[in-house]
Amino acid sequence: MRILLCISYLGTNYCGYQVQPNGITIEQRLQDSVEAVFGLRCPITGCSRTDAGVHALRFYCTVDISDAPNFIPVEKIRDALNHSLPRDIAVVSASGVDDSFHPRYSVVSKKYKYLIWNERPKNPFLTDRAYHRPKPLDCAVMDEAAKLFIGIHDFAGFCAAGSSVRDTTREIFDAGCERDGGLITFKISGKGFLYNMVRIITGTLIEVSDGKIMLSELPEIIASRDRGRAGFTVPPQGLYLNDVKYE
Amino acid sequence: MRILLCISYLGTNYCGYQVQPNGITIEQRLQDSVEAVFGLRCPITGCSRTDAGVHALRFYCTVDISDAPNFIPVEKIRDALNHSLPRDIAVVSASGVDDSFHPRYSVVSKKYKYLIWNERPKNPFLTDRAYHRPKPLDCAVMDEAAKLFIGIHDFAGFCAAGSSVRDTTREIFDAGCERDGGLITFKISGKGFLYNMVRIITGTLIEVSDGKIMLSELPEIIASRDRGRAGFTVPPQGLYLNDVKYE
Repeated sequence: MRILLCISYLGTNYCGYQVQPNGITIEQRLQDSVEAVFGLRCPITGCSRTDAGVHALRFYCTVDISDAPNFIPVEKIRDALNHSLPRDIAVVSASGVDDSFHPRYSVVSKKYKYLIWNERPKNPFLTDRAYHRPKPLDCAVMDEAAKLFIGIHDFAGFCAAGSSVRDTTREIFDAGCERDGGLITFKISGKGFLYNMVRIITGTLIEVSDGKIMLSELPEIIASRDRGRAGFTVPPQGLYLNDVKYE
Repeated sequence: MRILLCISYLGTNYCGYQVQPNGITIEQRLQDSVEAVFGLRCPITGCSRTDAGVHALRFYCTVDISDAPNFIPVEKIRDALNHSLPRDIAVVSASGVDDSFHPRYSVVSKKYKYLIWNERPKNPFLTDRAYHRPKPLDCAVMDEAAKLFIGIHDFAGFCAAGSSVRDTTREIFDAGCERDGGLITFKISGKGFLYNMVRIITGTLIEVSDGKIMLSELPEIIASRDRGRAGFTVPPQGLYLNDVKYE
């Protein structure tokens, strides 16, 4: 039986989502919890990977519990897992899905947000939860720049160097920036994203606001496929996987 | 010269605002920072005290820097202090005030809020920042109950036992509850509050929602001045000093 979990986590204390040899990850904690509840180390498949320090409001993964010795009614799985998970990882919901459902291949769209704290004094409530940029940013210009990313583009210039992905064309459904007091929120949705793509786009919006990149040049910079012409990669702590939509 | 500081802090890692012998407090950190910047342990007077784990979005205090050997222009004090403060305490603003200004006696009103996370699964983003109450609460009933606290009342029944305050009459200007998804926010403003008063009122609202206290009995419970008839004291981590208004 395949269970679809929606989880939420604060990424601050983890070396990213995916299991790795040199640090504690969210997937590792989830595997431990699943093993404690079901009595077996069950296979887990995630919808995505998130880097160290990146957060998720809704991240989806499947767990195959067919071979597990312990039977738990589906409606009790959420609470059982939450009981054994640390306080910075929570299961929001758990439901049974068809064995053909794949949490990565079945994705219709993913939504991310990136938070920038744009006041000179730091914000104690946003430490590790937003990128602190003390110099005033022009949110209206950033919003205009964000709109230029909407549509189907080859985003080779907005991908971390060393990525092995061949097809770098992606479709962005929507993108925009909003300001609420000192907090700027950049939201972006698309079918899929390249490695570090959201963080490089955010850095590019900041450089447009700072006048380092001209708004009028941006379409050509996107078309150039040149990582060197795009903006810097903003730090991970402002990034949130907001939601994932399935068919 | 007297400087008025507006500070903001996440109270999680502190034994409350006020200096005490057995733990690190916000005032202690502030004193250390003031000493590092001004070269002298200057007297600091706060607008209030907050308990261990309680947060403040805007907390005011004065610092008397008349005898300090280091001269810092007023417009540079904020950044200088922020530079030496830990990341969970920030100076939002610093300005010169008259020597007659007292951060406690000059208060016109104080605003608090109390956050309750009211969904069954925990919220990793609100650990230490809200009170987790998994059972559904009736926010509309809590809002009705909150309105009954508005006005001038003797709040002796809503004060922690052992408090030495003689006059327990206080005026509440406004109070109410709002729900946004799983988050319930109780807001209350008044000229002053007794020890634990906001937390006991919040606990009372929860007991009204749970049916342990009848809404119709509440005016009589307030009038009774009996701590035993009011609700429980909710934990500190949901409480925020939101703002303080001066003449």
